[in-house]
This record gives sequence, C-alpha cells and structure tokens, in this order.
Amino acid sequence: MKTLFAETALTAAGWARDLRIVIDDAGDIVSCEAGAAPDGAESLAGPAIPGMPNLHSHAFQRAMAGLTERASDRADSFWTWRETMYRFVARLEPEDVEAIAAQLYLEMLKAGYTAVGEFHYLHHGRDGRPYADRCAMSEAVIAAAARAGIGMTLLPVLYQAGGFGGAPAGPGQRRFVSATDDLLASIGELRRRHAGSRNLRFGLAPHSLRAVPPEALAAAVAGMRAIDAAAPIHIHIAEQIREVEECLAWSGRRPVEWLLDHADVDASWCLVHATHMTAEETRRLARSRAIAGLCPTTEGNLGDGFFPFAEFAAADGRWGIGSDSHISVSPPEELRWLEYGQRLLKRQRNLATAGAPGSIGAALWRGALEGGAAALGRRIGGLAPGCRADLLVLDAAAPALYGRSGDLALDSLVFAGIGSAIRDVMVGGNWVVREGHHIAEDRIAAAYRRAIARLSGGEE
Amino acid sequence: MKTLFAETALTAAGWARDLRIVIDDAGDIVSCEAGAAPDGAESLAGPAIPGMPNLHSHAFQRAMAGLTERASDRADSFWTWRETMYRFVARLEPEDVEAIAAQLYLEMLKAGYTAVGEFHYLHHGRDGRPYADRCAMSEAVIAAAARAGIGMTLLPVLYQAGGFGGAPAGPGQRRFVSATDDLLASIGELRRRHAGSRNLRFGLAPHSLRAVPPEALAAAVAGMRAIDAAAPIHIHIAEQIREVEECLAWSGRRPVEWLLDHADVDASWCLVHATHMTAEETRRLARSRAIAGLCPTTEGNLGDGFFPFAEFAAADGRWGIGSDSHISVSPPEELRWLEYGQRLLKRQRNLATAGAPGSIGAALWRGALEGGAAALGRRIGGLAPGCRADLLVLDAAAPALYGRSGDLALDSLVFAGIGSAIRDVMVGGNWVVREGHHIAEDRIAAAYRRAIARLSGGEE
Repeated sequence: MKTLFAETALTAAGWARDLRIVIDDAGDIVSCEAGAAPDGAESLAGPAIPGMPNLHSHAFQRAMAGLTERASDRADSFWTWRETMYRFVARLEPEDVEAIAAQLYLEMLKAGYTAVGEFHYLHHGRDGRPYADRCAMSEAVIAAAARAGIGMTLLPVLYQAGGFGGAPAGPGQRRFVSATDDLLASIGELRRRHAGSRNLRFGLAPHSLRAVPPEALAAAVAGMRAIDAAAPIHIHIAEQIREVEECLAWSGRRPVEWLLDHADVDASWCLVHATHMTAEETRRLARSRAIAGLCPTTEGNLGDGFFPFAEFAAADGRWGIGSDSHISVSPPEELRWLEYGQRLLKRQRNLATAGAPGSIGAALWRGALEGGAAALGRRIGGLAPGCRADLLVLDAAAPALYGRSGDLALDSLVFAGIGSAIRDVMVGGNWVVREGHHIAEDRIAAAYRRAIARLSGGEE
Repeated sequence: MKTLFAETALTAAGWARDLRIVIDDAGDIVSCEAGAAPDGAESLAGPAIPGMPNLHSHAFQRAMAGLTERASDRADSFWTWRETMYRFVARLEPEDVEAIAAQLYLEMLKAGYTAVGEFHYLHHGRDGRPYADRCAMSEAVIAAAARAGIGMTLLPVLYQAGGFGGAPAGPGQRRFVSATDDLLASIGELRRRHAGSRNLRFGLAPHSLRAVPPEALAAAVAGMRAIDAAAPIHIHIAEQIREVEECLAWSGRRPVEWLLDHADVDASWCLVHATHMTAEETRRLARSRAIAGLCPTTEGNLGDGFFPFAEFAAADGRWGIGSDSHISVSPPEELRWLEYGQRLLKRQRNLATAGAPGSIGAALWRGALEGGAAALGRRIGGLAPGCRADLLVLDAAAPALYGRSGDLALDSLVFAGIGSAIRDVMVGGNWVVREGHHIAEDRIAAAYRRAIARLSGGEE
C-alpha cells in the first residue's frame, strides 16, 4: 500500500483539493478522498493530473525520425516515405527493436504519456519467416515497456494484402504478413505468458482495409472476440486520398463508410487517422462511439490532411492522441496543433469545446484522456478508485505554470509549455520519472546508442 | 581573444571539418579556418551551428501565454484575444517588463535563439503619459536582454491610430501612442546611451497600416533613415482577413499591395505575417527582397491563416521566424510547422526547398538564419569572419541526434527534436548556456516569479 497527498488534483469531477490517494500493492488506486489530511502520506510537489494515453505507436519508427526529410527528384509523399520505412524495417532484429522502443517509451514518460498502444506489425525474421519463437518481436516491445515502466496495450497487426481486392503483399511487407489463425494463436500465447501483468493488455489491429480482405477482417475480429470479448480493435483508415479513391474503385464506398457498413464498429474500436471523411461519415463515426485515433504531428509530417475535428467534437465524437511515427513525442504539441489546425482553417480561436464556454486546454486534455483510455481498453486516464495509479506531477514552480492553478495550469501546459513542466511521473504505483529524470535513463540511452551503432555498421 | 575548435560546423559553404574559430574581445569572429589543428583551442562538445535570430517578439506577452485559451459565449478570434492583451498590458510597469523579458530571453537562448527583434510598443505609464525617462520601458527590455545575454534589435513602435483612415486610438492603446518626432527623438537618445553595445541595434517599427497613417509612415521612415540609413524597418501586415477588408475599403488596395505601392520597400524591411496575399503580392514581396517575418505558432494560436510559404520560397523570397506572442519558444517547432502547414494543405511532403533536392531541415534552418539576420540588421547568422560569435553546440550524444551528422543532424533537430538537443550556447563570444543550463537561470526565474506574484496581487 502507498498513500499520496496532492494539494490539488484533476479528477473526473473537476479539480479536487487536498486529495488523499491510496494505492494497493498491485498499483491500482483503491480510494481518493478530497479535503483530507496529509498525515503519513507522500506529499506531491505540485498539481497531480492523470497521465496521458498514447493510443498509436510504431515504436521502431522512432529510430528513423528525421531520416526522411529530404526532397528528391520526384514529389515526396506518404508513399515515398513508406518506401524508406520499408528499407529501414528490413534490417531490424528483436534486440534492436527492444533498445529503440525502450528509449522511445522513456521519452514518452518524460513527456507525460503513461500508457501506449503499440500497433505492432513487424513480426517475422528478415527473410519473412517466423522466428523460432513466433512472438519474439512482440516480446521485444513488451520487454521494452517493462524496462521503461510504461503501461502497454499491445495490438498485434493482421497484414495480408498489398492493396484493395487482395493484391499480394510486396517484398517490403513480408515481415508483416500472418495467416489469421496464426496471429490469433500468437495473441493467445502472449496472453498466457503475461497473464499476471497488470500494466499490459492485448488487442488486435487489422492493419487497414487495403491490407486485410473483408473475410479475414471478419474472421480476425470474431476470433479476437472469442479470446476477449471486449478487446480493443484498432485499424488505420482514410489517412490518404489515394486510399479513399482506391477504396471507392474497389467497393463503391469510402473507407470509413465501408467499415461502418460492414463491421460491428462500437466503443471498443479505434479508427486511426480517419482524416478523410464526409460530413455524414463524421456524424456516423461519432454515433458509433468508436474512438478517432488522431496523430497531428505525424499527419502533418506525412501531409495527410486535416481531420474534421471541430465537426467531430460538435457531434460529441470520442477521440484520443497518438505519436505514431514519433517525429514528436509530446502530448502538448499533439493537442495544441490539433486545435491550431482548426483555427488556421476556420480563422477563429478556441474551437475544441464545440461552443461550450471554458478552458480549451482542459477540454483537450480530458478529451484525450477519456478517448485514449477507452481505445487502450485499460482502467487508466483517471484519478479514481479502480484506475491504475498512472499520474503526472506538474512543476508548479516552472515559469510556464507559476501562479496558475486548476484549468489555467492545463491551458498553460498545453499551449504555453516551454521545456517540460512535468516533474514526476508514476505508472502503476511506481515512480518512473523523478524531478524530470527517468529512473533508468542512462542505461536505456546507452543501449539505444549501441543499437544505432549496430544498425549503422550493418550492410544496407 | 578566444579560440574555439569544432570537429564539425555549419558554415555558409556547408559543413566544415576541424574548424578553428578565433573570436576577438568584442565578441566578433575574426577568422574561421577549416582543416585546422585543435592546439590550445577550447574544443566544442558537438557540432556547431549558427544561433537562430528570432525576428519578432512582444516580450511581455510571455506572461499571458496560456491565459487566453478559453471559449466564451461569443466567437473567439484575434480581436477578442487583443482585448485580453490590452487588459493585461494596462497593469505592467518597467520592473515587471524587465523581469518577464529576462525570463523569456533566457528561454529563447536555451531553445537556440541567440538574437531577438523586440517589436516594442508599450512605451508610456498606466495613464498614457510618458515616464519621467521617456525611454524607461525601452531601457527595461534592453536591461533584460543584457541580463539574459541575448543579442537584440530594438524596434520602437510608432502607433497613432485605432484603425484605417486615422480613427483615434482607443483607451486600451493609450500606452502605445507617440508623436512621430517624439519616437524618433527617443530612438536617437537610446542610440547615444548605448553607443558602445555590440549586442544591440535599433530600428523602427511602424505598427501596421491600421495604426499609422500614410503621412506619419513616410515621415517616420524618412526620419529613421536620417538617423541610420540602413536601419531595419518592421511592420505588421495582412495578418487578419478583417484587416485586408478594411484596407480595401479605405484605399482600394490590399495591405501588402498598398505598402509596396506607397513605400520604398527594400531589403531593410521586414513584413511581419503577410499571411493574406494574392499570388501577385507574393511574387512582388519576394522581388522586393524584404523579409517575410513568419510566426507559425502564434499564427496558429490566433487562427490567422496559412502564409503561402511554398509559393514564396519558389519565388526565392526571403523569410525568417519569430515567436511573437511566445506561446511556444522553439525554433524547431516554428520551422517544422511552417513546413507541415504546407504539407497538410498540399498533401505532399518536403516542400521547403521548392523543388531542389536536399535536406529540408537544413533548407529551413539556413533560410531562417539568413532572413532573420537580414531582418535584424546585425552581422549575425553565420560562422564567418565579421559575424558576431553567436553559436549553438548540439548535443551529439542526445538520442535524437546520435549517429547523425551534417544535414541529417539538422533534419533531426528540426523534425525529430525531443527535449532539447542544444547543449551550449554562445552569444557575442560569451557562453550563456552550458550543458543545457543558463548561467543566471535561478536568479532570473526567481525575479520572474516575484513579478508574477506582484501582478497577481495587484488590483484588476
């Protein structure tokens, strides 16, 4: 048992004063009492807020962040970026992935993310054949999460085709491809191995409508439901105009439209990106209660386009944020640029609350907490009994926050954050960042540097 | 004399190896020799690059960053934001401004800005009357720059009207208003007082076409030219659609069009924002050799709209970056979102080089160095004889940069920076940041906190 005392803390009911938070040995919050006395509790050094879920991550891409920012003879796009990514992925072994992911997850924790949804598509050896342990790559990212101390929802990816209509997967994709039954068997095996891990859950990620034919999608979702009826289901969708056009050519329907028509999309689903939607698709997605998985920095980097955020929020849609390709790893940067994109397009300010008066920073932080927690399918995202003890302690003395409390502190964190205003980070009852330093920072960074040196020295 | 040795350094000719940089006692670079030996020189801990000029700052606004992110009953916009700013400004005294500006400039230095263009419009006492020393507020920001150790181009602002056609200034604007002759006299006086300061230059900022009638604009520019023929002239322009409409109603011309038609706009001018331009205005501005002063984070925060960056770069236009209202203080964030805005609009990647192959990070950093230095009218922005010794030492061991050299390090700094990858910062030959810490960080932060406490305790 561990007891914390926060002079101010963000709860579902708003800002509480003098909150006593009792955490059991498994890392769950068992009680939260406002207006309490600090006796015997560990006093937090600043306001406490729930840690942010990062609902969309491809961990290995962190090591190629910055390597694709080069103009070439032909027009660059998502598709040329993808070719570079395929070349990079071809060289990675599990030890590389573990080292890269641990460094990334450490950076996430320092930035305020306390849980990650790992959309994990790199399964097999360099020749495309399964490793001796078919789950070796999954084990690498699970080990990385444990080393860094971040919560994880692992979403093994089903990948079977190179395009709509079942076009065969290309050579750059062979490390991703699995038969549906094999992938489900791996998920079952991983669940058995890690049955006791309270910081870990498993879901399923059909990669996209272009990579998963309709029959496989239906079979995989049904198979996953048989393993875990409420498991999160994540899918990439409508990120690129070309994808929308190809989907229309194949099916006569747009991607989001097709999915809502053909799958039983509910609150356990997360539609990642969903950038290109009609007004009707936007309303239907909101009504489905599925989460829109928004990744503003990656969507900006890849030139995807603008998600219709103001319209989706006005329709009471649920959403969360992900750092995706990890060119940035910062909840404030994702949240402010989600809002700024709308401001720039509409030439108005303060749009995220869809007309309700109040703090935009708080509306953004709370919205992403709620949607992110739902998308990751874990009891996270709140300071309340039953939730994991995943929390951030803000640095009230940081100039960006000084003299600001309550929602104004959140407005300042999201919009005016310079450097990090996050002082301490707890995940599942354990402190993993203290005074801005991760508990294993030097060791994890050294392993990362060894991996980069190894990859740089290898053959192309 | 001081001698530095950089294993790699960014010069006008590209990346140099084994560069020996000799700096005189005044803080100017007197020689740069590549392929040299390190004997006796101070070895830099990583790659050296020129520090970034920040060409547009309203320093006091740093203390209100985060205070305007709240939806209200009516639509929020630039104009409602401006009302909040006027209420905030009404309470500031020179000691407050000095404390806020010093904290801001310290943050700029840590983020990689080594010079600032202070667009300084808060001149008079709370009742609108000049201080006993008419230059008291200017002296406050000059003192702040000296305390933090940043280079400065002070741009005292001419402000006379509340709108196009000479509408009288409102009560919220009375602290800004000066007669043309009085402002020029103040600039002359400041130049005499600070004649020996090599980190300081003076220019003139006619606030905008709405705040400065045509005759005053002409007289002020002529008067400034009489004081210093090459002085930088900065003006806010075409930031808001309403401003464009009012300018059309008043003159039949759009703001940029009007200015190019009526003023002798040349390479010593900086047009701040210039967001709303036709294709013809974009080409004409590029041809004028004036600098476009771009502030992507503030323009996003205020919902201004998108500057036509790809078209302006294709026309070989000159530009630099500013942090303006200081909701963010980060050259990488300004630069990457300048590029991302274009990618999102055009759904392509890698646009800043306007078709030329190569590194986008390097193209952005170099573009902003060159334009920023020109806009500030000082010998800065390069590692070359005659330039101020204003430089950054990157942290080559930072995970974001590890294993990356040359332009790839710049791509990673601009696009994949997480936390700060800037280790040491020198301005005018003096180290002001070492291993990520500013030399006067605690003292300046304590003074800032006292100022905020004072402002929070005062009457509304």
